[in-house]
Amino acid sequence: MERVEQHASFGGRQEVWQHASATLGVAMKVGVYLPPAALAGEKCPVLYWLSGLTCTEQNFITKAGAQALAAQHGFIVVAPDTSPRGEGVANDPAYDLGQGAGFYLNATQTPWAPHFRMQDYVAEELPALIEQHFAASQARGIFGHSMGGHGALVTALRHPGRYQSVSAFSPIVAPTQVPWGQKALAAYLGEDRSSWNAWDAVELVKTAQEKLPLLVDQGEADEFLASQLRPELLQAACEAAGHPLTLRLQPGYDHSYYFIASFLADHFAHHAKALAPR
Amino acid sequence: MERVEQHASFGGRQEVWQHASATLGVAMKVGVYLPPAALAGEKCPVLYWLSGLTCTEQNFITKAGAQALAAQHGFIVVAPDTSPRGEGVANDPAYDLGQGAGFYLNATQTPWAPHFRMQDYVAEELPALIEQHFAASQARGIFGHSMGGHGALVTALRHPGRYQSVSAFSPIVAPTQVPWGQKALAAYLGEDRSSWNAWDAVELVKTAQEKLPLLVDQGEADEFLASQLRPELLQAACEAAGHPLTLRLQPGYDHSYYFIASFLADHFAHHAKALAPR
Repeated sequence: MERVEQHASFGGRQEVWQHASATLGVAMKVGVYLPPAALAGEKCPVLYWLSGLTCTEQNFITKAGAQALAAQHGFIVVAPDTSPRGEGVANDPAYDLGQGAGFYLNATQTPWAPHFRMQDYVAEELPALIEQHFAASQARGIFGHSMGGHGALVTALRHPGRYQSVSAFSPIVAPTQVPWGQKALAAYLGEDRSSWNAWDAVELVKTAQEKLPLLVDQGEADEFLASQLRPELLQAACEAAGHPLTLRLQPGYDHSYYFIASFLADHFAHHAKALAPR
Repeated sequence: MERVEQHASFGGRQEVWQHASATLGVAMKVGVYLPPAALAGEKCPVLYWLSGLTCTEQNFITKAGAQALAAQHGFIVVAPDTSPRGEGVANDPAYDLGQGAGFYLNATQTPWAPHFRMQDYVAEELPALIEQHFAASQARGIFGHSMGGHGALVTALRHPGRYQSVSAFSPIVAPTQVPWGQKALAAYLGEDRSSWNAWDAVELVKTAQEKLPLLVDQGEADEFLASQLRPELLQAACEAAGHPLTLRLQPGYDHSYYFIASFLADHFAHHAKALAPR
C-alpha cells in the first residue's frame, strides 16, 4: 500500500492510499480517515462508505463533512473508488455502466467479469487490508449513497455477522425493478433474471435471518426518487418480513452531497449505537 | 439576478446566483447560503467569504462544511467567484494571474483595467445586491483563504466601519514582499511600487485607525508558508501598531480545505462575537 495523499483534519488525518487489488486486478485508490484516537494507537471501529455513480474515492472525503464526526466518534472511515479503472479495464461511454459504476457486485459476463468484482473487494479484500494496516477494531459499519446505498444494504444483507450496522442515503433499493439497476444487472450478470435477486436489497430482506436495523434517508425533492430509488418498495418488504427499518423522507432535499452532509450526523449516531456503545 | 442552483442544506438553502455585474462588466456567479432564520424572514448578519487562487464560487460551498455552522449561527454566507471570467476578459495562462486570480483589487493597467475591479465588486456592488435581495441585516463580516485571506484583510482595512469582523486562513499578508503578490501587483497596478501598499495588509495595519481584531489561522505544514504567506510579517506589524491579532499556527495542517474545515467553527464563533452578540 502506498499513501498518495495526506492532510491533517480535525486532529486526525485524511489520507488516500493506493494498492494493487488482487480481487480486481488493478490498482485501487481508497480514502482513509484516521481519527485522533487511531493516531494515538487505539483500535477504532471502521465505517465503510460506498459512493454513487460517477464518483471516485474523492467525492465523499471532500464534500460530506464526515471528518468532524469521525473525529468526534473515534471512527476510521474508509471510502473506496466505485469501480476498477484504467487501461485494460472494460468500460462503456454511459455514466451508469462500467468504470465509475461497479454496482458493488461480482460480474459474470464478458467483458466485465475479469475486473468487476466490487462485492468481493469491498466485503473481503478491503476490510482485511484495513484491519491489517491501521488501528482498526473488528467493529464494522457500512453506509453509502445511491448506487452506494444499494451497495451498503446488499453487502450487509449478504454477509450476516460481518457488519454491526448499516445505513443508506437515497439508495437504489430494488435494482431489479428500476432502469439503472436493470441495465447494470443485465450487463454484468446476463439476461437470466434469476441471478439478479442476490443483488437486490428488497429481495434479500425477504429472506434475511439477521435482522440488522436499517436507517435510510431519502430526499423528497430527489429527481431520481420515483424512477430509480423507490424507497416504498423497501418499506413494504421490511414490513412483510418484520425487518426493522427507519425510513425518513426529508422534505425539500435533493440527491446531492448537500443532502448527505445535512443528515450525516444522524447516521454516525446510528452506527455508534452498534459500533461504540457507551 | 437569476438563481442557477439551489439545494436544501441543514434546514436552510445553499443557492448559486448569477447576475450582470456593473462593476466588472461581466456575469458573475456567487454562492449564497440562507440559514433557516433567513428563510423564515428574519434579518441575518452576512459573512463574505473570499476564495483563493484558481477557485470559483463552488470551492467553499462544496468543501468547507460551512452550512452546518451558518445554520446554527443564523448567518447568510456569500461566496463570490474570484475574478471576472469569460470571452472578452483578459487572461494569462498561469494559474496565478488573470481569470481565477483577481487578487481583490482594482486594476489600473492594460489589459486588466476594464474588468478586473474585484475590490469595488466585493466591497460595494455585492453587499448592496445581497442586502437588497435577501433577508440580510447590515451586520457584515469578511473572511477568506490564501489570496482570499489577503482579500478579506485588505478589504476590511480599506473600509473602516463597513465590516464588524474579519478573519483569514493562510492569508497572503504581504503581497508586496512575496512572489505571488509581486507578480499580480506589477501586472494589475504597474511597476510603480508606490501604488502597491494600498493593497498590502501589513502596510495597511501600520496606519489603520479602526483596530478591528484580526483572527488568522495558518497551517505549519503549508507548502506556501515561508515563500508566499509569511504571517510573521503581519504579527510584527500588528505588534508595532498596537493592532489586535490572534495568530494561530496549527501544527501539521496544510493549505487545503481540510485545514479550513477543521478550524471553521472557531472563525464563525469569532464573527458571531461581533455580528450576533448574545
